[in-house]
Amino acid sequence: MPRTTSTRERLIADAERLVHQRGFTATSVQDVLAVTGVTKGALYHHFPGKGDLEMAVLEQAGAAFINWLDEVLVGASPRECLEHFFDSALKHHRKQRFVGGCLFGNTAIEMSDVSRQHSDLVASVFDIWSNKIKQVILAAQTDGQIRDDMPARGLAEMVVATIEGGIMLSRLRKDERPLRVCLDSLKALLWGQCAPIQEK
Amino acid sequence: MPRTTSTRERLIADAERLVHQRGFTATSVQDVLAVTGVTKGALYHHFPGKGDLEMAVLEQAGAAFINWLDEVLVGASPRECLEHFFDSALKHHRKQRFVGGCLFGNTAIEMSDVSRQHSDLVASVFDIWSNKIKQVILAAQTDGQIRDDMPARGLAEMVVATIEGGIMLSRLRKDERPLRVCLDSLKALLWGQCAPIQEK
Repeated sequence: MPRTTSTRERLIADAERLVHQRGFTATSVQDVLAVTGVTKGALYHHFPGKGDLEMAVLEQAGAAFINWLDEVLVGASPRECLEHFFDSALKHHRKQRFVGGCLFGNTAIEMSDVSRQHSDLVASVFDIWSNKIKQVILAAQTDGQIRDDMPARGLAEMVVATIEGGIMLSRLRKDERPLRVCLDSLKALLWGQCAPIQEK
Repeated sequence: MPRTTSTRERLIADAERLVHQRGFTATSVQDVLAVTGVTKGALYHHFPGKGDLEMAVLEQAGAAFINWLDEVLVGASPRECLEHFFDSALKHHRKQRFVGGCLFGNTAIEMSDVSRQHSDLVASVFDIWSNKIKQVILAAQTDGQIRDDMPARGLAEMVVATIEGGIMLSRLRKDERPLRVCLDSLKALLWGQCAPIQEK
């Protein structure tokens, strides 16, 4: 027998879709009930408060994102892993038609000055993301594929920030160019040929 | 006689402060009236609708930001101009204690899927910012201070995206490290020594 989706799972999935479009503040419990088609009692049975549903949304989205990272950070070499990750990120947002952006970036902007609970959860997702990129950069440095005069941790943090900024700008313009340019520049700067720099 | 601040100017300044903290959707006309201490009639005399006040906020903030860019993009060489700009950006957000973030990045995240009018205005601010950085990078490339095997336009767009991502992450953690690391990495990648890259 196929596994049926539980009420709890449907509530989280519907809430995530709404939050991704509108943010946490603009998504009411009524909105979620209207989409999922359950009673207020059923929702409060699973989530005592709106905040509990919101945390469940972020936790589930975080876990799904980390799984996705493991799926796309693959390749015959560390460099190919990063290239495949970059290409997959662009493909994902192109498929979204640059609507919705990144749930974690959106939440960072919306909640950083408002809720420590939301911020801490999002910060932990960024930490895991950044650490995974750091491991690949370290391996690429060991292989001599990426310049090793800069710490892998800092480069990884910069990669994450640049992608978040690129998603923001592509979403703003509904155009893939900003994100594509960011990814192309990251590639070139991380492992491209170094042009001769004349000191003046 | 010192010039007195007009009601219109006070309304824009107070609305900007609120929007910077909470965003456009969560800032009501009532909130602005309460802070500025004027009547609804006075507000609607200057701004027929809430959207008109919001556009005035973005236009004024955009003009102030562009002026600030011209003030900080200064130095004895193109490279020093960029360094001074990077340092000034970090100093500005440190002074804000990483609260509020960047009004234009916040608005991009909040309004990109919601209002073409807000998005177009913010996109024009990012365009001007990016163009100013491009001019400095072009000059630095001509001087041989920045690698010239990558188009200045793309590098400038990446600089803007990386800074926006860095501001987002520093605001999330209430810690200057993410933005500082982004700026240090940009510096090193744009004009740092190139480590010998072994092709494997």
